[in-house]
This record gives sequence, C-alpha cells and structure tokens, in this order.
Amino acid sequence: MSQPLRLGVAGLGTVGVGLLRLLQAHGPRLAEIAGREVVVAGVAARDPHKDRGLSLDGMTWFDTADRLAADPSIDVFVELIGGDDGPAKAAVETALRAHKHVVTANKALLAKHGTELARIAEKNGVALNFEAAVAGGIPIIKTMREALAANQIRRVYGILNGTCNYILTQMLEEHRSFGDVLKEAQLKGYAEADPTFDIGGFDTAHKLALLTSLAFGTRVAFEQIHIEGIERITQADIEAADDLGYRIKLLGVALLTESGIEQRVHPAMVSTDSAIAEVSGVTNCVAVDGDFAGNVLLVGRGAGAGATASAVASDVLDIARGTRHAPFLVPAAKLKPYKRAKLGQHQGAYYVRLAVFDRPGAMAGIAGRLGERGVSLESIVQRRPRGSQIGIGAKPKPGAPTPVVLITHETTEEAIRGALTAIHRDGNVSERPQMIRIEPL
Amino acid sequence: MSQPLRLGVAGLGTVGVGLLRLLQAHGPRLAEIAGREVVVAGVAARDPHKDRGLSLDGMTWFDTADRLAADPSIDVFVELIGGDDGPAKAAVETALRAHKHVVTANKALLAKHGTELARIAEKNGVALNFEAAVAGGIPIIKTMREALAANQIRRVYGILNGTCNYILTQMLEEHRSFGDVLKEAQLKGYAEADPTFDIGGFDTAHKLALLTSLAFGTRVAFEQIHIEGIERITQADIEAADDLGYRIKLLGVALLTESGIEQRVHPAMVSTDSAIAEVSGVTNCVAVDGDFAGNVLLVGRGAGAGATASAVASDVLDIARGTRHAPFLVPAAKLKPYKRAKLGQHQGAYYVRLAVFDRPGAMAGIAGRLGERGVSLESIVQRRPRGSQIGIGAKPKPGAPTPVVLITHETTEEAIRGALTAIHRDGNVSERPQMIRIEPL
Repeated sequence: MSQPLRLGVAGLGTVGVGLLRLLQAHGPRLAEIAGREVVVAGVAARDPHKDRGLSLDGMTWFDTADRLAADPSIDVFVELIGGDDGPAKAAVETALRAHKHVVTANKALLAKHGTELARIAEKNGVALNFEAAVAGGIPIIKTMREALAANQIRRVYGILNGTCNYILTQMLEEHRSFGDVLKEAQLKGYAEADPTFDIGGFDTAHKLALLTSLAFGTRVAFEQIHIEGIERITQADIEAADDLGYRIKLLGVALLTESGIEQRVHPAMVSTDSAIAEVSGVTNCVAVDGDFAGNVLLVGRGAGAGATASAVASDVLDIARGTRHAPFLVPAAKLKPYKRAKLGQHQGAYYVRLAVFDRPGAMAGIAGRLGERGVSLESIVQRRPRGSQIGIGAKPKPGAPTPVVLITHETTEEAIRGALTAIHRDGNVSERPQMIRIEPL
Repeated sequence: MSQPLRLGVAGLGTVGVGLLRLLQAHGPRLAEIAGREVVVAGVAARDPHKDRGLSLDGMTWFDTADRLAADPSIDVFVELIGGDDGPAKAAVETALRAHKHVVTANKALLAKHGTELARIAEKNGVALNFEAAVAGGIPIIKTMREALAANQIRRVYGILNGTCNYILTQMLEEHRSFGDVLKEAQLKGYAEADPTFDIGGFDTAHKLALLTSLAFGTRVAFEQIHIEGIERITQADIEAADDLGYRIKLLGVALLTESGIEQRVHPAMVSTDSAIAEVSGVTNCVAVDGDFAGNVLLVGRGAGAGATASAVASDVLDIARGTRHAPFLVPAAKLKPYKRAKLGQHQGAYYVRLAVFDRPGAMAGIAGRLGERGVSLESIVQRRPRGSQIGIGAKPKPGAPTPVVLITHETTEEAIRGALTAIHRDGNVSERPQMIRIEPL
C-alpha cells in the first residue's frame, strides 16, 4: 500500500466535525478503495478547548488556517471555514502555492474567485475540488465535470437552497404566510437570524455561478446573475399555482441562448407532473440538459453535516486515487469569457397576478396593454383566496380590487414587463403586479 | 498535447452509431477536456456495406471483434455487441489480456462474468468501465464507484427498465389492459417481439446485479436475485393503487439486512408523494441510501442512442484523462462473497387484492388466516373496477366474487405468503391472491 494521504482540516464546525466522524467511521473502507490510508494530520479552528464530541487524538493543532495550509505535514488542505475573502481565501492560496491539493465547500469564495484559484491550482499541478460547495450530498460537480462532460449542455437548473424550498413547501402545505413560516424556520434553525442571504437568492446564485462555468466552459461570472428572492411570494400565489397545476420553486437557471448565457435566480412555476415539483422541504435538486444524454436530474440532501461530509470525502478519495481534473471542466486558461444574454429577450410563459379595481373598463384596459405588446393569454382566472369569507354569489365591496390570475403564452420578458409597467401606471390595479416565470421542464 | 487515445468500436448498431456521431460532433470538445484527441482507429461489425448514415473514413475495418480487440492500433476496446457469452465475452477477454482498456454497455455479460472480468482487467492493469450498462444516460456507476464511495450503502433501488415503466404508465393513464399496452409497445418498438426479457424482470435483474456489487463490495451474484415480472399486474391493481396514493413500478432493489443482502426485482407500490412516482414512460431512475449522504436519486433516459453514447463517452473520457478505478469499487480479490438474505424474512407492508366469494363466513375466514400469522391491516377497501356497470346500491350477482383490497401493516414475507396460500386453499377466493410489496421511500 502507498503512503497515507495526509489531510489538514481547517474549520471544525458542523461540516468539519461531520468529516472527522466519517473518516473515523469508514477509515478501513476508504483505505481499501483508495489503496492507501487517509489520515487527518492537522486541524485548525478557533477554539482548541471546545468539546466537539470526538477525539482529535494524533492530529496536530494549528492556530491559524494559513499555517496549516503551508505545513509540510499535509498533502491536502480541506477548507471548511467559509467566507468569500479573508482567512479562507488566504489559506487556500497558500495551500495551492505550497503544492497542496485543496478541497473546499466554500461556494462564496469560488463564486467570487473561482477562475483565479483554478489558475493557481493548475499552475501548481494540484487539484481544486469543490463537490460540497453545490447541493451538499448531490454529486453534481462530478456529474458535470466527468459524467456529462462529452455533452454540449443547453441548460442547468435546480433547487439549490433548502431554506427557500422549506418555506415554499410549508406555505403550500400549511396554508401559512411567508412571514409566519420564515419565523418558524428561524426558530427551528432552518433559517438564519438574518435570512437575506438565503431568501434573497444570493446563496442559490453562488452555486449557480459554479454550475454555469462547468456547463459552458466559461469564466465564473457571479456578478452577472439576475437575482430575485422569494420575499414577494404570497399565499395567493401558492394557491393559484396549485389550482393551475404548478408548484412555486426558487430556481437557479443557466441557459445557453443564441445571444449568450442567461443566468437567473428567481421563483419559478414548475408543472406538478414533473419530478422537480415533488422535491419538497429542505431537499435540493439539479437537472442538466445535455445534447446526447438528454435531461438528467439529481435529487438529494443539499446541506447538513452528513451529506456535506460525504461530498468532501468523495473529493478527498478522488485525490487519494490519483484522479485529477481541471476545476471547471477545461483548463482555466481556456475558459471562455462569459457573454451575458439580455434577460429582456428571455422567451417564456408567465404567471401574472393582478389586484384589479372593480370598475368599468379596468379589464379592457389591462387586455389592451397586453395586446399592444403582443402578449396573448393561455388562461385567465378570477379567484378569491381559499378560506375567504365571501360566499358563492356574494359580491365583493364595490370598488375593492379583485384578484385576477393570468397565464400567458410564450412571449418575451421585455414585452411582459412593459405591459405590466403600463398596467400599473394606468391605475387599474391596486398594487404592483406579481409576475412569476414558468420554467418548462 | 499527448498522444491520441485510439478506440476500437465493436458493434455498429444504434449505440455504436450514436457513439461515432458523438465523437464526430464533439471531437474538439473532448480533446480540450482530456488534453488529447480521441479517435476511432478501428471498427468491427457484421456488414461492412450497410449504410449507417455516417462516414467511417479513416477507420480500419475488422471482420471480427476478436481481431479488433487484439490489434496494436487501438488503446481502448469498446464493446457494443451484446450477449452474455459468445463473441462479446471472447473479445473483451482478448482485449483485456492484450492490455487494452475496455468500455462496455453489456449488462448481461457483466451480470454473468463481471467478477471474473474485473480480475482479468486488474491483472493486466487496465480499466473495465461500464457506465452504459446500467440506466443509460444516468451516471449511476460513477456515482456509486466514486461520488458515494465514502458511504456505507444500505439500499440501492430503481426503475431500470423503460419498457416496463412505459407499459405501467400507459395502463394508468389510458386505462388499458396489460396485453393491449404491450401490443402497442411492440408496434412502436418500445418492446421486443419476445418481451419476456424485459417484462419478466430479467433485464432489470442484470442491472441490479451490478449495482449490488458496487453498493456492498460483494461479488456479482445475478443468479441470487429473486425475480418477478409485471405480467400479473392488472388494471384493477393500477386503479386500486391510484386510489390508495400509490403508483406501481417495477423496481430492482438491493438491501443490506442483518442476515445478508436482499436482491429482488418485482412490481412495487411507491407513494405518489415520492419523486420516483413521477418517473413515467421510458424514463429510468436509481436511488441510493448512504449512511452519510442520505438518499440520492438520479433520474434520466435509460436507453436510446444518445443517452447510451453519452455514458460510453464518459467512460472513454475517464480513460483519456488517466482515471483508473477498480471496476466494482474495491479490487476484485477483495470483493466479499455474496450472502443472500432469506426473502421470507423480508420486512414490509403489502398490498393484497382478493376476489372474495360473496358468501357467509368468507371474510371472517380470510381475517382469521391473516390473524393466525400476526398480519394486521392498515386498511381494507371493497372496490369495483372504474367504469364497472354496477350502480350505487346495486348488488353484484349472488355468489360472484367481490374485489377486496388490503394494505397490511409491516409484517414478514413468510407471514403474508403463508396467509395467502391458506386463504387460496380455503376456497374463499376465486383466484390466486395478488400480492405487491410496498417499498418505503
């Protein structure tokens, strides 16, 4: 058997401890598969005295990640610190320059500095693996970098944030408002005290940026992503979607179009007939459309100690077995510049919810605005929220707005946005119109 | 750039031609990813004059697969001939012994001779890759061999045969009988003239045998699989399942139990709330339960030229990039002997459909037989098939059997089988009871 592979693990939070547990539970298994032992030679974390519920026997303690990263006692630096700059970035660079392989779960770091770090890794002849950075235990990085590598990818999309999916699922199943469910999620630890990062779509966007680069062989372009969160989704939308045969999911989507690449994060309607519609709670999924493979969908745990540790361990195993790949499919020098498609030219169908004032000419005015821009309708439904107190035949208060839901035929983002702006300005609706893209699956 | 990787492709049917098309479409892409060109140096097939709709320019023609396999002009032998013995086996062995890597889509060959061929491959220091042998474009082999390799797998299961899933889906959606749908599937080319291999569960079993070995590091043990096909599924079962919140799917399941491994292929009830329930038509899926990763589900095209070619190409790319893995997770010499769990000890809930004679004491007799063996019921439904002419309140002909559907609580296979045998023998039912396992997801 060859020399053991020596890991330095920086960051002993949930994931770090999960990884140590996995290595302790499955040491002999890994040695058999890899043909060599995998040992943790050193660790770095803030507090050396904290009880983490497991033995650090035989591991050298380092006070800073950077010192661990440079230490000759390790072959692989495992970065589980987090943060898009600061100590994580410094330590990863130190490790790569010291010819250590790097395994990281840090999507924020890679979304911001991925291309540059890939270049440094390649220059130093080492691996930069990041299976755990996207969708936890779902092996989407390996799938795109290896299994589907022979395909021209047309689209990659997925449910990449468990917090959002949990909130949307609870809103549907328990008929509760966004605010209520968010509060509960915070109490249960499914959402952060400041939830903006998750519910605003930024976490999803970090992951999407990495998937986009792998899909199209382009430089990582997080700053080019169109991002909308789920804050504006109401119980009325959830119910209307259900009636119309849809679920609302926060999707990250990267799509190759003739004019460039669309990268977008936004709530989307997906058909209840699709497997994605059944991906509920904190579960994540990612789907890839390849020109030869067709549509491949992966579903699993997107977060948590075990799932993330499994992903980190698979990256470590690859290194132990001698597998080396360019971090983003092709060598960093060959990554193409990112060319952004205009979202205004996005083609698709749309869900629109309007609060229409009940007065003569209101609907005619709305229909006119849509018609002007060539937006035609597949369906139009006037609906009251479930559990509303208005009985059959009862009339709403004169002048009070009536909820109207429209599903458009395929049109452009420019056309629908233009029409909705005009409709709002005309004063026929009491609030800003709600618009949700329908994603064809 | 390194030397080109030279392929010898044996078998130019649908998949072989699909592979050549992929290589012609994406040659530069593959070269960029692999760092070397991938070229087809030689081909072997039955008829050199057949028009395959693409150019074989620059490829040397071989009359037999075996000669191609041994030829010094190739580095990788791609076996797309099929068959569990005969020319395919001979050529694969020849290639391995001549130190050629082998890529094969041949599940029958591997189900029968996988352990032995893995040993020969390892002895000669070459790869034996077979991503295309299981579930077409779904990268399940790579997922199990690499991505989830750090996990102790508890269960792997899936919908592995498109023909069966198409038939079951059509029976549900079009309310047609098994025989009708099968005939149509044969006309459309979704089912073979002799469909036994698919609908009898044997094709699923071949694939399952490979997944089992990868999951548990055991020798391939196809002959140890309990196999039931879908021939006995009736429209009554499909409808009753739908009413009860289930879909019927032909599953291959490998489960680690305390007494050994259960390997079984049979129709199973899966909850309509699960993502698997939405896997319809010819689509396939595979799910893996890992101790750290949790449940990971992969869905995609299980067959067809494009999907299978994508899988073959990913195996070829791995070889081109220098990735080498033991075919069945651990070196062949370390594969454990397969230890079969007794299916009689299988624990689970069951769906049972009985045609009960409408006479005094019949139900009491049935209940007694179940009670004797400790089988308790979660629900019991007396139901007429949809579209039956019997109106509300109308009574069936005296003495005619009444369809009764039972869902049991968890019990053992031994108990339920014993009870059903006794019920049949007692003469309270007009035909052999139908029994379908409920698979918890």
